[in-house]
Amino acid sequence: MSDSYDNAPLAARMTEHVPHAHALGMTLISVGEGRGSMRVEWREDLVGDPDTGVIASGVVTALIDHTCGLAINAAFATPAPIATLDLRIDYLRPAAPRAGVTCEAFGYKTTRSIGFVRAEAWDVDRGDLIATAQAAFMLNPRG
Amino acid sequence: MSDSYDNAPLAARMTEHVPHAHALGMTLISVGEGRGSMRVEWREDLVGDPDTGVIASGVVTALIDHTCGLAINAAFATPAPIATLDLRIDYLRPAAPRAGVTCEAFGYKTTRSIGFVRAEAWDVDRGDLIATAQAAFMLNPRG
Amino acid sequence: MSDSYDNAPLAARMTEHVPHAHALGMTLISVGEGRGSMRVEWREDLVGDPDTGVIASGVVTALIDHTCGLAINAAFATPAPIATLDLRIDYLRPAAPRAGVTCEAFGYKTTRSIGFVRAEAWDVDRGDLIATAQAAFMLNPRG
Amino acid sequence: MSDSYDNAPLAARMTEHVPHAHALGMTLISVGEGRGSMRVEWREDLVGDPDTGVIASGVVTALIDHTCGLAINAAFATPAPIATLDLRIDYLRPAAPRAGVTCEAFGYKTTRSIGFVRAEAWDVDRGDLIATAQAAFMLNPRG
Repeated sequence: MSDSYDNAPLAARMTEHVPHAHALGMTLISVGEGRGSMRVEWREDLVGDPDTGVIASGVVTALIDHTCGLAINAAFATPAPIATLDLRIDYLRPAAPRAGVTCEAFGYKTTRSIGFVRAEAWDVDRGDLIATAQAAFMLNPRG
Repeated sequence: MSDSYDNAPLAARMTEHVPHAHALGMTLISVGEGRGSMRVEWREDLVGDPDTGVIASGVVTALIDHTCGLAINAAFATPAPIATLDLRIDYLRPAAPRAGVTCEAFGYKTTRSIGFVRAEAWDVDRGDLIATAQAAFMLNPRG
Repeated sequence: MSDSYDNAPLAARMTEHVPHAHALGMTLISVGEGRGSMRVEWREDLVGDPDTGVIASGVVTALIDHTCGLAINAAFATPAPIATLDLRIDYLRPAAPRAGVTCEAFGYKTTRSIGFVRAEAWDVDRGDLIATAQAAFMLNPRG
Repeated sequence: MSDSYDNAPLAARMTEHVPHAHALGMTLISVGEGRGSMRVEWREDLVGDPDTGVIASGVVTALIDHTCGLAINAAFATPAPIATLDLRIDYLRPAAPRAGVTCEAFGYKTTRSIGFVRAEAWDVDRGDLIATAQAAFMLNPRG
């Protein structure tokens, strides 16, 4: 987390003011310039298949989508209008039973009009991912 | 909607028993063999940017993700274990202010081990899409 | 094919002047406003696995990539600078042994700065696809 | 490059015996367990737009596609039948004028039935990419 980066307003905006982020209990782990990390704790009502106790893939999707948005927002000192262009997620394996999920996203390239973000999600071990993602955002789409 | 297809259990499973689907107010429009349609009505608390009154892109993502799962589930007479392999969404334009979003997904190809789904989402006019998507699912992943 | 659309220069540019298109023997089937179709005939030296006699997936990739570029070029009466943003291909099944491949692509949405294209490829029967694709292009990237 | 990994047959198969790889002048830089690197030198006849002297994006696509296949093939000591499931490429910027392109791909996850590969392509500086890609392959598709 960058010291010179005041993330309090962004953190509040990304967790409290977004209804499905709030409903899923997403919490912000860290945010820095062009990167961010968020987490969903395991909860019984987030399970997709009661037989396995594994968090639903839709919850992972929402977490990744939201963390990518956090990272691209965190690329700008002042909030700028952005529009998601595309999002692609590869699901490598299901999460472990009764495990929460953490996602980290970082902007790896910004041109004048497009920002590119990559994200990774894992349950227990950062080195054993459950999903990877790439997203592109249009910057200043109304400009 | 197929007459011979009893969708009541699937419909209940896809709307009431999934917490974020429930939180976003997703409703099932129709389901048939290998296809399904769901909708999110506009609500003030689903808006991403108060200045525009447009539904958040994360809500569109969740709707598409869920409708793709509905379509692949609807491809089987008896519930089968599936696992999402990948999901890709192109966001063509923002939804209109104060407009809800409808998504329709259909399975266009099933092999022995993989099911492929396409989806489209629109706000007012089915012919003027706001997003398109493709997803792949592994069938019987534990088999 | 549109009557009012003079495709001769574009056709020549897309087949003769592009070395790998030429090397693979790509031929133009048709071109119209915002759409185009190209084909690769089966040839022994394009086969990926001699045991099966099936055209290599890399040839299918190149054909789809090129046909998407044709479609987006065909969206403009006068040639405009474009830049590919992304390309995604789903391979549904291998082509049939000793079968050529046809691809059709069409632009389904153009905003001020982005053009979206979809493509389908098949071997024998247009209704039984071997691959689907989506691509996005930035229009006037230097503007 | 792994010492214990005999890459000579694979290298020959990936460069000489594949017609469009050969036509584009692809050369193998290195190959190891689950990873590989290939390169295309700049040539006037590979240029997309004579005004810029930049290598055509279709050449970059072909190089990435081929290098991903190399990496997944290199994951097995004995050649195994594989089938490409999907390929996604993000083009970050055009290559520099009169610059060749290098691509490195590595398999980052293999399950019983699916292999996942990531790739990066650059022109001059490995830290300043021109394209990133992800691909999935079905392993032993006929098994």
